[in-house]
Amino acid sequence: MAFHYPNGKRYVPAVSALTSRPVKKANYGNRGKSLEDDINDSNEYYLANGVAVIHKKPTPIQIVDVHYPKRSAAVIKEAYFKQASTTDYNGVYNGNYIDFEAKETQNPTSFPLKNFHEHQIRHMEAVTKQGGISFVLLKFSPVDEIFLMDSQCLSGFWERMLQGGRKSITKEEVEAHSSYIPLGFQPRIDYIKVIDEIIRVSK
Amino acid sequence: MAFHYPNGKRYVPAVSALTSRPVKKANYGNRGKSLEDDINDSNEYYLANGVAVIHKKPTPIQIVDVHYPKRSAAVIKEAYFKQASTTDYNGVYNGNYIDFEAKETQNPTSFPLKNFHEHQIRHMEAVTKQGGISFVLLKFSPVDEIFLMDSQCLSGFWERMLQGGRKSITKEEVEAHSSYIPLGFQPRIDYIKVIDEIIRVSK
Repeated sequence: MAFHYPNGKRYVPAVSALTSRPVKKANYGNRGKSLEDDINDSNEYYLANGVAVIHKKPTPIQIVDVHYPKRSAAVIKEAYFKQASTTDYNGVYNGNYIDFEAKETQNPTSFPLKNFHEHQIRHMEAVTKQGGISFVLLKFSPVDEIFLMDSQCLSGFWERMLQGGRKSITKEEVEAHSSYIPLGFQPRIDYIKVIDEIIRVSK
Repeated sequence: MAFHYPNGKRYVPAVSALTSRPVKKANYGNRGKSLEDDINDSNEYYLANGVAVIHKKPTPIQIVDVHYPKRSAAVIKEAYFKQASTTDYNGVYNGNYIDFEAKETQNPTSFPLKNFHEHQIRHMEAVTKQGGISFVLLKFSPVDEIFLMDSQCLSGFWERMLQGGRKSITKEEVEAHSSYIPLGFQPRIDYIKVIDEIIRVSK
């Protein structure tokens, strides 16, 4: 039996008292912005402040039919989405080539590897061989947590899957093998701070 | 009076003997391939041989209307070409960030600067500030000659234009301030060889 001490307002039971489902934490910070929006904002901040030059690549499209109306711009009338052959983001930071992919999951306990494609894994491996810095940003959307995992580490989990192992990375594994990036104000996702650490350690 | 010595075939005067126009040199090597095709082939060669990881970015498209038919792929029904905010090609070579734009002109004596956009010039300047290697590949199509010009040099000619100077770079200026890249077999356009020289000199 719970006591409801008077506070001048009518008593309304909390949602958690009515259902057995876990309460979704209020997410005042993100205001409905996607991981992609947050990264683009961060990249704009980096660019405007001379920190780094990193852009998202355009979505690859297979164009089938284009019309050229008189006195106006060409209109694409039929086109299809193509699978990207590389990662979504790349650029340069302080002489270093930066290359990464960003994915979010609604799964609170593990990150499904189906978010990546074989050729993206191979691309990141090729980048690492050329001395570039390659990683993934993993977001667990239900808890609003973002991690930076080196692509070599991701390759390890990928190989485990290819050899018949689990098709995802558990949250614990992500926490153990990645850097947690707290959400900030400006830049929103300060992944360059983690890159600094990676560069410092590798030297 | 010219003598036509018998060679077992009927004599046919050369085109140059019939008209006063300069003879277009036979172009057996290029077989109708565009500069973009040749660069893509070269990048594929570099990738397959572990030399460098450099890709062309997809063309940026503004999507307005997409249909999602049942049991088949999404169809883009209305979209428009957007102006690129960066250059077309980037990637990593031996720890160096590589960023460039490639353009060809039908003009045999000068390269029109209208082939570039203000924001591309500024993008290349930002890349150089971050320690990246940034340049343009200029092709004079009538003579099948390709030059690599450093973006800082291009910026100089761009500023000259902004200050009221000529709107193009003369062929002589290109020759004096660029590296000529002879067309090869594999890779077709071996620009990495020039990059090696740029890296060597800058160290």
